[in-house]
Amino acid sequence: MVSVGIDLGGTGIKAALVDDQGRIIRKKTIPTGAERPWQPIMEDMTGLVSDLAKEEGLEARELAGVGIGVPGTVDPERGELIYACNLPGCRHMPLREEMKKALGLPLYLDNDANVAALGESLYGAGGGQTRCSVMITLGTGVGGGVIIDGRIFAGAYHGGTELGHLVMRAGGEPCSCGRRGCWEAYSSATALIRNARRAAEAAPDSLLWKLCGRDLQRLDGKMVGEAADAGDPVASLVMKEYIQDLAIGLGNIYNIFQPEVLILGGGVSARGEKLLRPLEKLLRPEIYGNDMSKVDIRIATLGNDAGVIGAAALAMQGR
Amino acid sequence: MVSVGIDLGGTGIKAALVDDQGRIIRKKTIPTGAERPWQPIMEDMTGLVSDLAKEEGLEARELAGVGIGVPGTVDPERGELIYACNLPGCRHMPLREEMKKALGLPLYLDNDANVAALGESLYGAGGGQTRCSVMITLGTGVGGGVIIDGRIFAGAYHGGTELGHLVMRAGGEPCSCGRRGCWEAYSSATALIRNARRAAEAAPDSLLWKLCGRDLQRLDGKMVGEAADAGDPVASLVMKEYIQDLAIGLGNIYNIFQPEVLILGGGVSARGEKLLRPLEKLLRPEIYGNDMSKVDIRIATLGNDAGVIGAAALAMQGR
Repeated sequence: MVSVGIDLGGTGIKAALVDDQGRIIRKKTIPTGAERPWQPIMEDMTGLVSDLAKEEGLEARELAGVGIGVPGTVDPERGELIYACNLPGCRHMPLREEMKKALGLPLYLDNDANVAALGESLYGAGGGQTRCSVMITLGTGVGGGVIIDGRIFAGAYHGGTELGHLVMRAGGEPCSCGRRGCWEAYSSATALIRNARRAAEAAPDSLLWKLCGRDLQRLDGKMVGEAADAGDPVASLVMKEYIQDLAIGLGNIYNIFQPEVLILGGGVSARGEKLLRPLEKLLRPEIYGNDMSKVDIRIATLGNDAGVIGAAALAMQGR
Repeated sequence: MVSVGIDLGGTGIKAALVDDQGRIIRKKTIPTGAERPWQPIMEDMTGLVSDLAKEEGLEARELAGVGIGVPGTVDPERGELIYACNLPGCRHMPLREEMKKALGLPLYLDNDANVAALGESLYGAGGGQTRCSVMITLGTGVGGGVIIDGRIFAGAYHGGTELGHLVMRAGGEPCSCGRRGCWEAYSSATALIRNARRAAEAAPDSLLWKLCGRDLQRLDGKMVGEAADAGDPVASLVMKEYIQDLAIGLGNIYNIFQPEVLILGGGVSARGEKLLRPLEKLLRPEIYGNDMSKVDIRIATLGNDAGVIGAAALAMQGR
């Protein structure tokens, strides 16, 4: 059994033919043309689905279905993309209806963070432990996806699990959402860079200045890691405080969901063991009862393919 | 179809025969004798079950089963009470096995906060809206119970949904769990009283002094409410700040679970509309997207019966 998973992004549309073990058989990427109305974007996607099938010698109707992850809010029951700020022409895009019309295939959709969590839980770092698993993406923001009993959980109206928007320092740093002190305002890559810039401002000798060519606007998360690894005391302190706040936020998530696996994705997670080792030490006091025996934190393994693999799995689940 | 729900507390054992609409047919309460080993406590509970059946002219085997809510950690799969600090003799109490042996009845158990949430969701304030509902108990601590698709959710190992132990002011007030800044340290009745005492210390003219007979150790949550209602400026400010922190914490819960209904129980919730009105105003900025259209906060309606009704429902669900 095979299905097609689509990752509809603001820059590219990536589609993949995926088997029922989460293995990519064939994949294709085309530019989104995000400024266009939804109709030609839809045509491109149905075109990708039939091309992928054809190239593998399959009729479209032999596919189990199509799954799509979208960067915005969805109504999974109606099969509609409601709103995505990076896709201005796709307001109330009737994905299910159009896919049915064009190829006679069932379509299932969800938010891209949720779909990536499904992919990682089933076929990536989660290794199929899906009684309850949580994926946290440390990128521009802090995103969350929760899998319960093998399926995406996103609240009663499918707009929940905004895990980056838990206030952990009431009255603290302003967050993009309008509140103050959200976890995202401390544990996103954006927050790491902000803190490093502030620290560098006060420390003209820091290696950070050298790495960014003396232009703090060009400082990125990787440079902060690099400076910390080189022993720069300013960057090391920034990184230490970042990991401390990450531990508080992950402790909160653990105390809510007590997941079998807590998966870290996104740019910051690329630090791998350099992140995990100090994190696990700082996490213990944050876990209710200080019981680390069941805590299992892992770095995501599917990278940019988590989206298409998770979307294909969604189609395979038929919901 | 009827089942028996038992609320095993540190002071009393309450048992009720409940029908499949959550209506109590008959109920009995006896003292727990919490200092005893588990065997005589178990005998008392099986005795209560057969008495309740007999008094309604039923054979024990005509019951659907027995549900128990316990004030501690449980292993619902093995049907065991693992540990409850108020029941020192009940460590690893094999409830399911013993109930089977004594009366041939299936037994299901869960933590008392979870069971109360199930009762309120199905038959109390939740009115059966159980796609996702959350109950928060504002008492000595802040307890949480989460219902997803009509059933208790408590994490992969059934020790999650410790909703009172989300850090909302990192580094803030010490919490009974050992962390600092947990929601419980701001929104429990205990925290309300602590804050009122501190405020009164600095305000010898406050009405709070009069209400507690000039002994701040005797101050309770009700007195704080009473003083605020009477217009005492010190108590009013304490109450206002309490509701502000409650709004931040409930905003966090909403942003995670997006429940159909958010039920407030426990002593502080007895303030009813006086709590709800200011709370709803302060909640809007805490909700992701500031969208209050689906936010539905209600005061618990089953009172002390939530436990037996929820426990009976657990038995009726057969899990």
